[in-house]
Amino acid sequence: MLHIREVGPRDGLQAEAPIAVADRARLIDALSATGLREIEVVSFVSPKAVPSMASPHEVLSLMTPVEGVAYWALVPNVRGAELAMQSPVPLAGLTFTASASAVYNEKNVRMTIEESIATLAAVRAVVGAPVVIDAVISCAFGSPYEGDIRPSRVGRLGEQLLDAGATTLTVADTTGMATPRRIRDLYEDIGPAVGLHLHETRGTALVNAYEAMSLGVRRFDCSIGGLGGSPFADGAGGNLATEDLVHLCDDLGVETGVSLDALLSASSLVASLIGHPVPSKVASAGPRWKLA
Amino acid sequence: MLHIREVGPRDGLQAEAPIAVADRARLIDALSATGLREIEVVSFVSPKAVPSMASPHEVLSLMTPVEGVAYWALVPNVRGAELAMQSPVPLAGLTFTASASAVYNEKNVRMTIEESIATLAAVRAVVGAPVVIDAVISCAFGSPYEGDIRPSRVGRLGEQLLDAGATTLTVADTTGMATPRRIRDLYEDIGPAVGLHLHETRGTALVNAYEAMSLGVRRFDCSIGGLGGSPFADGAGGNLATEDLVHLCDDLGVETGVSLDALLSASSLVASLIGHPVPSKVASAGPRWKLA
Repeated sequence: MLHIREVGPRDGLQAEAPIAVADRARLIDALSATGLREIEVVSFVSPKAVPSMASPHEVLSLMTPVEGVAYWALVPNVRGAELAMQSPVPLAGLTFTASASAVYNEKNVRMTIEESIATLAAVRAVVGAPVVIDAVISCAFGSPYEGDIRPSRVGRLGEQLLDAGATTLTVADTTGMATPRRIRDLYEDIGPAVGLHLHETRGTALVNAYEAMSLGVRRFDCSIGGLGGSPFADGAGGNLATEDLVHLCDDLGVETGVSLDALLSASSLVASLIGHPVPSKVASAGPRWKLA
Repeated sequence: MLHIREVGPRDGLQAEAPIAVADRARLIDALSATGLREIEVVSFVSPKAVPSMASPHEVLSLMTPVEGVAYWALVPNVRGAELAMQSPVPLAGLTFTASASAVYNEKNVRMTIEESIATLAAVRAVVGAPVVIDAVISCAFGSPYEGDIRPSRVGRLGEQLLDAGATTLTVADTTGMATPRRIRDLYEDIGPAVGLHLHETRGTALVNAYEAMSLGVRRFDCSIGGLGGSPFADGAGGNLATEDLVHLCDDLGVETGVSLDALLSASSLVASLIGHPVPSKVASAGPRWKLA
């Protein structure tokens, strides 16, 4: 069983021009109907820094929570954690990002890595012990600013984040520098319990996911349509598309609990909401068994 | 050592609007300078059927053959074989296509599969015994018209093509229906000596290549920039991009003999010749170690 955390309403839409709050809720509801069990729905960031993520409480008020679906929110800082605690919808977990790249961390959250670790501890103090916090380590496979980043450094940062209050860890290939070999190298250090968040910058997201699956990794972040990309890293490229991973898993006989047909409907909805085609090739070509 | 047969000047350009003959020769020369040791340069098809492949002899006259590079041509029939025999440049081998899908074969070459096998025998008779003929089995992983195609059927067709005069075989995923599981299933039947020609229709070309490499497959068709797609199969999608495979192999430590930098120059040349960006993501993002 593969656990997919859908990040399209957050990581996907943050790279797009802002769309109506009601449309963001509509997308979440469409995704809730696909069999996905985890969806990152909002980000409690400054609307000035990321305009397309404005009004998270309004999105949460308008969406219809579905039993059995865990809704996540990104909190970048203590203020975000306080806002998340006032969510009108119960949140199953919070994501908190720290980067293995000092330069990227500075650009993304205007903090040193040490400040990010201290911020996570402060976030934990605000939300209390029972709340699940997944710490996402960005640029875990390298950064466009510093080049390669050693697995041991990522592993050490992971330990520091767990010590600071993270419940679980996810490593992110923010700018598409992962390859199957580097997936193996890093997971040898950190172990298969760590989740994986992939980007399609160099067309390697799917082969990286496949390699990770072979190593026993079972938690993946995906974005509907393959939308996404960091606003703070040029040419970051979209996320691994949810429909691409489900298409692969369906054929491999790996259970995801997700309906590809329902995903393709959600994908076509998001394309109409953002007003341009999504990058996913499965979205445009359809399932392999669709006869002409 | 991986053997890449570059098919961009043929399979890549055939899906594009015709470009000048001199530009086709220029692309071939750029590719000859990358370390590639096999390039499919022309197709002896009717210019009415495939206008962008018109004037193969002119292309061959204008290109500069490089020692150590094997130049290939596609011949669809006896007439094509006769023309190939008059090539002003020594051809190292001919490709001949027959489809595992009866409907696709009919659309592509207006023959039944049996007629294609008989045509290969006639081509062999024309070119004589020493000429290398690689028989490419299209739709080897399924067709949009008939759906899945059984590996045993592909294996049997392969044997018939070898009996009819083929020197080697390549299986082609013409419409992007291959997946890692189906790569395994088919190669269990046909063995790793058979080459592999992949398309990116559903974003699976690289993961399929990776799986095939793990099974010992060492011959791959690739197209510069990921250009390509059959004019006779809607939405066939581009070929596996040469730069994407070389980028992966470089990082895995699998030798290809090809310089990624030189490939990226050729890729940028072809983009300027066809007047639009190429699909390859490595072409747009650059190598992973390129620092900002």
